[in-house]
Amino acid sequence: MATDATGESAGTADAYAELVERFERINGVQGAAGVLGWDQQVMMPEGGTPARSKQLSVLSSLSHEMLTDDETADLLDAAAEADLDDEQAAQLREMRREFERADAVPTALVEEISETSTEALGAWEQARAEDDFEQFAPYLEKLVDLKRQYAEHIDPDRDAYEVLFEDYEPCLPLEQAEEILETLKETLVPMIDEIRASDADVTTDAFAGEFPEDGQEELSRDVLTTLGYDWERGRLDPSTHPFTSGNVYDCRVTTRYDETDPLGGLMATVHEFGHAFYNLGLPEDHFGTPLGESRDLSVHESQSRLWENHVGRSPAFWELVTPKFAEYFDSDASAREAFESANQVYEDNLIRVEADELTYHLHIVIRFEIERALISGDLDVEDVPTVWNDKYEQYLGIRPETDTEGCLQDIHWSHGNFGYFPTYSLGSVMASQLFNAAEDDIGNIYGKVREGDFEDLQTWLREEIHQHGARYETNELVREATGEDFTADYFVDYVRSKYGDLYDLEESV
Amino acid sequence: MATDATGESAGTADAYAELVERFERINGVQGAAGVLGWDQQVMMPEGGTPARSKQLSVLSSLSHEMLTDDETADLLDAAAEADLDDEQAAQLREMRREFERADAVPTALVEEISETSTEALGAWEQARAEDDFEQFAPYLEKLVDLKRQYAEHIDPDRDAYEVLFEDYEPCLPLEQAEEILETLKETLVPMIDEIRASDADVTTDAFAGEFPEDGQEELSRDVLTTLGYDWERGRLDPSTHPFTSGNVYDCRVTTRYDETDPLGGLMATVHEFGHAFYNLGLPEDHFGTPLGESRDLSVHESQSRLWENHVGRSPAFWELVTPKFAEYFDSDASAREAFESANQVYEDNLIRVEADELTYHLHIVIRFEIERALISGDLDVEDVPTVWNDKYEQYLGIRPETDTEGCLQDIHWSHGNFGYFPTYSLGSVMASQLFNAAEDDIGNIYGKVREGDFEDLQTWLREEIHQHGARYETNELVREATGEDFTADYFVDYVRSKYGDLYDLEESV
Repeated sequence: MATDATGESAGTADAYAELVERFERINGVQGAAGVLGWDQQVMMPEGGTPARSKQLSVLSSLSHEMLTDDETADLLDAAAEADLDDEQAAQLREMRREFERADAVPTALVEEISETSTEALGAWEQARAEDDFEQFAPYLEKLVDLKRQYAEHIDPDRDAYEVLFEDYEPCLPLEQAEEILETLKETLVPMIDEIRASDADVTTDAFAGEFPEDGQEELSRDVLTTLGYDWERGRLDPSTHPFTSGNVYDCRVTTRYDETDPLGGLMATVHEFGHAFYNLGLPEDHFGTPLGESRDLSVHESQSRLWENHVGRSPAFWELVTPKFAEYFDSDASAREAFESANQVYEDNLIRVEADELTYHLHIVIRFEIERALISGDLDVEDVPTVWNDKYEQYLGIRPETDTEGCLQDIHWSHGNFGYFPTYSLGSVMASQLFNAAEDDIGNIYGKVREGDFEDLQTWLREEIHQHGARYETNELVREATGEDFTADYFVDYVRSKYGDLYDLEESV
Repeated sequence: MATDATGESAGTADAYAELVERFERINGVQGAAGVLGWDQQVMMPEGGTPARSKQLSVLSSLSHEMLTDDETADLLDAAAEADLDDEQAAQLREMRREFERADAVPTALVEEISETSTEALGAWEQARAEDDFEQFAPYLEKLVDLKRQYAEHIDPDRDAYEVLFEDYEPCLPLEQAEEILETLKETLVPMIDEIRASDADVTTDAFAGEFPEDGQEELSRDVLTTLGYDWERGRLDPSTHPFTSGNVYDCRVTTRYDETDPLGGLMATVHEFGHAFYNLGLPEDHFGTPLGESRDLSVHESQSRLWENHVGRSPAFWELVTPKFAEYFDSDASAREAFESANQVYEDNLIRVEADELTYHLHIVIRFEIERALISGDLDVEDVPTVWNDKYEQYLGIRPETDTEGCLQDIHWSHGNFGYFPTYSLGSVMASQLFNAAEDDIGNIYGKVREGDFEDLQTWLREEIHQHGARYETNELVREATGEDFTADYFVDYVRSKYGDLYDLEESV
């Protein structure tokens, strides 16, 4: 009996070890695909597409096969019987989630979605160029239908949008996300109204003029070094759309340079730094396993937004950085002018990626409401442009005159990514709560920012967030880090205080 | 009966189609590994090694598993029964060769060689830095032993070195390679003696001075464009060791810049152009299959050497390029002076990679003789330094004073690459024969080179070599392209004529 029991226990422990090895192999393939993706966007000559597409599709199908193999299922069942510690249990939880998600959806459907997305991307590009939603509509309709099928394979008993949302944010209930977005809407719509009515004298043109690309690159490198980017494990390159790619050993950022918009590029650099700094702080011990991965998109975005908004858009940061502007460019803006320009609330911006920190979230709320209604069937694809424009008028007081500036502006739906947008706002909200807790623990963060001393903030984020990898689910991670449940309260306080000061708003707003 | 026969034929045709698909998948994985390798040498931050090693090792074991799978063997057997045309038969021949090679050697031995190589590389680096062969000797001994075992698994009845040689040059008999190397030795040893005794006034210092890196990069880009490099399917970057990586859609070159040696960098660029131009001319229709690959190392090296030596070291090339030197640098060398400097035979160079076009081959002959004797057991590892130095004295009239400048100079043996070196010289010899045939077909190539007109030569190489992929084996490819068997005659004529003129040699040499 004793022998049998020992034998069985050893067997289940072996199953756990085998699983870890199997997921490390899968991660090796996915990591390779990540490098290929980075290369494709940053280095690859344009002719390279046919070979690259083939390579990426082979790697994707190999990792899918390895993940959904019957043996994975057997090992997961066997390991569940093993005597696991908390960390191992968390590891197994993440493994099972990945497996179940991948296993539930037939390969044929995954391929159909992928092929339809490729066609939809082409149609979207053309529709956008020609300001003609009609051209994109049939593809959007097909993607909505395919994604409903996709959700049904995963769980036929739940709201399809809820299931889709989990692809990007698996450990935060949609209901909670919805409440937070509702709070943002209720807070920001009247606040933006009042800002528009304000006659406060906010500088808007500190970054007017020509800012040569060379200087912008030097500035980005300088700021990355100042924030604490580890160049031995990273690099900076330009790309059309800034992004971050990599792991704890090698995590690279990209940014963009527009000679008339040095702020856009610099804020992109700071934003991507936040993403990279997270990945570079993940637990090396668990490299290559689900436990060694970052938590999902809201948490990742909380890191980029914390650095972009709470650091990069603060008066203290501009006291630190304005002298660098004078060094790299012919610029005589004061720190206060730069701060104000970096935080101005735009009157008539229709484009999400060019939005300020406040209006940004109404761009998200609009997309969230529309895609939920699309997936539930409450909204027909043909009505999207009208509903889009009505909502912009209602929430932001501006109405797009073209679909190119309206519902065709973002690439996401052409990828079939329904449920992705909310994570952007959730990240901002979480960033506020985390920054507040860090300030409670550290004290006088902005005094240190002014001196270019980021060490305490770096350490706090590493210890409270990064080093845990995927050990905790989102709500637990926030609770462990801040001592409180995930809440929008700190974000509301933050924007009321910051924009109240900037625009001399009534205290009631 | 008729139905059965048809059914069987369809089955075997299916087997062929399945094989092609399987090899395309394998190629996708290997292509991905190629991109990762390029990135590692050109872009990766130094800290990235642990993740990259893991990714590469997973891809390597996956492609090995896919290749040696029982199903591959079954499909190969089934496809052999199919009614294949010549091209398909060549495809199957290449597939079978890859499979048999990979299948013959136990995975454990492959892994042991790989691990020993990693240790040996570290030991070699340290031994070389400290000029202490003793530190490297035990690793070299182990690698010799492991590689003997490796060869025995593949074919216990044949000479082990012959088997190892086939890893780099599978379709050229070693005996033939040996004869060619013997001819080189017999030709070059007395010729170099006479050059040393010559009192011809050859310019040696046309490239003395400082040549800033920026200008060298511009020059390399300019020359690549002039030679016909397709920038939409390639890129140029600096790396420690110049190399070429990629496929018909995306083939990239690297070069090196040393401010006191602009010739070294430019010749590396031209050499790598030759490799890249080959890959970029491979048949797109067969992309991803063995038939769509380049022929092996001798043929590949013939392409780089043809461009480097027959084009890049010709008087015509220097008439074309010397004005560019004046444009990018403060240089007033004449075309003739530049040509002479680029072709001078060094008196006392001990280092293979810095050798001129003549002494180069004696560096190769020495390595070939030593590694053959090591593998056969006729030479003990401990005696390598002495034998090395004796041979340098005997063939080149110079004796290394240190092992760092002697038998520790090259990295190849620390990788366990025995049998690789000969392909360098075979490539040069083949280049001469191909260039001679191209001249016969085209006429006045150097007149066109002088004008920067490379079109006819490009077309000839594409049609005679590149477009065939791996369709023909090496000897057949040479015969198809030149109408003659592979021979060293043209190389001997070429060096006698060129260096005879340059150094006023007796006609008998």
